[in-house]
Amino acid sequence: MSSETSVTFDRLKAFIQEAMIKLGLPAQDAATVAALMATADLQGSDGHGVSRLPQYARRIRAGGVNVRPDIRVVHDHPGTAVLHGDNGMGHLVMKRAAEIAIDKARTTGIAWVNSQYSNHAGPASLYASMPLAHDMIGLYFAVGNANHLPPWGGLDMLLSTNPIAAAIPAGDERPIVLDMATTVAAYGKVKTKALRGETMPEGWMIDREGKPLTDPKRADEGMLLPLGGMEAGYKGYGLAMIIGLLAGTLGGAAMGRDVIDFNHDDDSVTNTGQAIAAINIAAFGDIATFKRSVDALVRDFRSSRRMPGVERISVPGERSAEMREKRAHGGIPLAPALLQGLDRVAEELGMAKLR
Amino acid sequence: MSSETSVTFDRLKAFIQEAMIKLGLPAQDAATVAALMATADLQGSDGHGVSRLPQYARRIRAGGVNVRPDIRVVHDHPGTAVLHGDNGMGHLVMKRAAEIAIDKARTTGIAWVNSQYSNHAGPASLYASMPLAHDMIGLYFAVGNANHLPPWGGLDMLLSTNPIAAAIPAGDERPIVLDMATTVAAYGKVKTKALRGETMPEGWMIDREGKPLTDPKRADEGMLLPLGGMEAGYKGYGLAMIIGLLAGTLGGAAMGRDVIDFNHDDDSVTNTGQAIAAINIAAFGDIATFKRSVDALVRDFRSSRRMPGVERISVPGERSAEMREKRAHGGIPLAPALLQGLDRVAEELGMAKLR
Repeated sequence: MSSETSVTFDRLKAFIQEAMIKLGLPAQDAATVAALMATADLQGSDGHGVSRLPQYARRIRAGGVNVRPDIRVVHDHPGTAVLHGDNGMGHLVMKRAAEIAIDKARTTGIAWVNSQYSNHAGPASLYASMPLAHDMIGLYFAVGNANHLPPWGGLDMLLSTNPIAAAIPAGDERPIVLDMATTVAAYGKVKTKALRGETMPEGWMIDREGKPLTDPKRADEGMLLPLGGMEAGYKGYGLAMIIGLLAGTLGGAAMGRDVIDFNHDDDSVTNTGQAIAAINIAAFGDIATFKRSVDALVRDFRSSRRMPGVERISVPGERSAEMREKRAHGGIPLAPALLQGLDRVAEELGMAKLR
Repeated sequence: MSSETSVTFDRLKAFIQEAMIKLGLPAQDAATVAALMATADLQGSDGHGVSRLPQYARRIRAGGVNVRPDIRVVHDHPGTAVLHGDNGMGHLVMKRAAEIAIDKARTTGIAWVNSQYSNHAGPASLYASMPLAHDMIGLYFAVGNANHLPPWGGLDMLLSTNPIAAAIPAGDERPIVLDMATTVAAYGKVKTKALRGETMPEGWMIDREGKPLTDPKRADEGMLLPLGGMEAGYKGYGLAMIIGLLAGTLGGAAMGRDVIDFNHDDDSVTNTGQAIAAINIAAFGDIATFKRSVDALVRDFRSSRRMPGVERISVPGERSAEMREKRAHGGIPLAPALLQGLDRVAEELGMAKLR
């Protein structure tokens, strides 16, 4: 990785922010999107941060994303809402959705907000983590923006990698943050492999004859394997379907054949759907007791006896948190192919390059 | 399976009900438990129905379960509650929890109820399905009653198979009902294999050296593999942990090292935790539109092109529904080993045998 360039979080954020302003977003919205995208890179979600900027720029310039959306609540109940994103950047829609959910959960104990007419919003963990600061648990579900998964046993691409994320506050320990695609590998990981010129391990994707596919540049010819793989993939398939129903269908957003493949379509309205829940721990008992229990659990897990060859046991979110600390000091590495893509964006928008 | 005896749903329910009354449950509670247990068998959840009766009877007689519980709400908010099960049968606690969630979701749009001091309640799908009749989506999470899963890379049994279930109403199609353990195989399936004298496929369990374990009678020597298997089991591990935190820790119930192994302990209070959510579809838009979308999705999935050798494509819950219809007509088959166990229960309780 010696050929990689590193940039600071602030530099990266400023670059994205400038690009978003050049693309027509209001300054405040550009700052919000830039902060979330740069945070994705900071925590190691490389497939969901600045690597998406060239694509976002392309879609915005093609008219596929509304840069001045009127994001508004279209259905409202004490514990729920449906937020119409007006085809704005997904980051703006889901940050707002999280704020609404947190606010409602203060009185109801739990709140659930669906988006419709949203767009790709980056890593699920960003939004699931927003309730943490309010001593709430966050859950997040999303319909992915391209179908790479058929129903179990099928060939038609009717499902995306539909991710689920959950964030649970701890006391002295770091919060537990799970963020997972319901496929063996997320499609963003496939893209990262392609950008880095690496091959994929067997088990990530298969071709239409069911044979392993390991060249990420041939990804279009194959399909992702649902979580569980060849053996129990019907479970991952079931999870992907349920998440799609909760995050898409429930909120009146696209799901199944209605999902737009935003890798091959720059101007159609995607009607992306996501859902976020905030669960107010105070409604279930004493917050300090809860946090002590989570701390104790994390420590029990960490100090478990280990299988031969295993150096440490992690809990979900631990490695992202460490990455965040590492990159906050050492900078965020950017692969050469990505940098070239960002250079082109800078050129097109008439702004200074990142490096 | 020609050596198997078949019984009708009504006969099975009556047998369980009589046993529960003999064990000390009030008649109404005995009827509730019996109906839920027999329904588990009817839908093919063989590891979670009457096969558990000998164990339930043993625990009740050992004083491990309270037959006259005072099930009560101990924390209450508009959209949430914590239900204290007073160590009663889990079926009673979670049926009540579902009713509370459904009732609250009518006004709030979503409600979430945790149990504490509950017990094993049978298949997760039973409770997740309860909101369906009210045009609501049901979600259910539970902490399993024995730890067979270490943290990823570890050897200490700190997690159970913690299941997740989801039920989504459809229109003309059957509801979509997912019910899955977060391990490759549920422990109940291991028990069923043992009862039937069959071996397990490779990939369900490993021994403490990481080698495949296929003899279900040796299950105590090994551990279940989390969903994802050797390749992506850290995802199943993460899911199991999050579900345990939501269903156990959040409600003040046992999780991690506090979980009682009810296969080897008849008299300790398990403090089992479960959580159920009801999501009111009407709060998110038009119910008929939602159901039409679900129907269309199911049909798209079903008519997908298939991989070579695949005869049909199912959606979650379809096979259970077919099993329910088949067994409603043809009866519920009971394996010889199970029948012998039920005969012993009948003898101990001084009641007529099932056959």
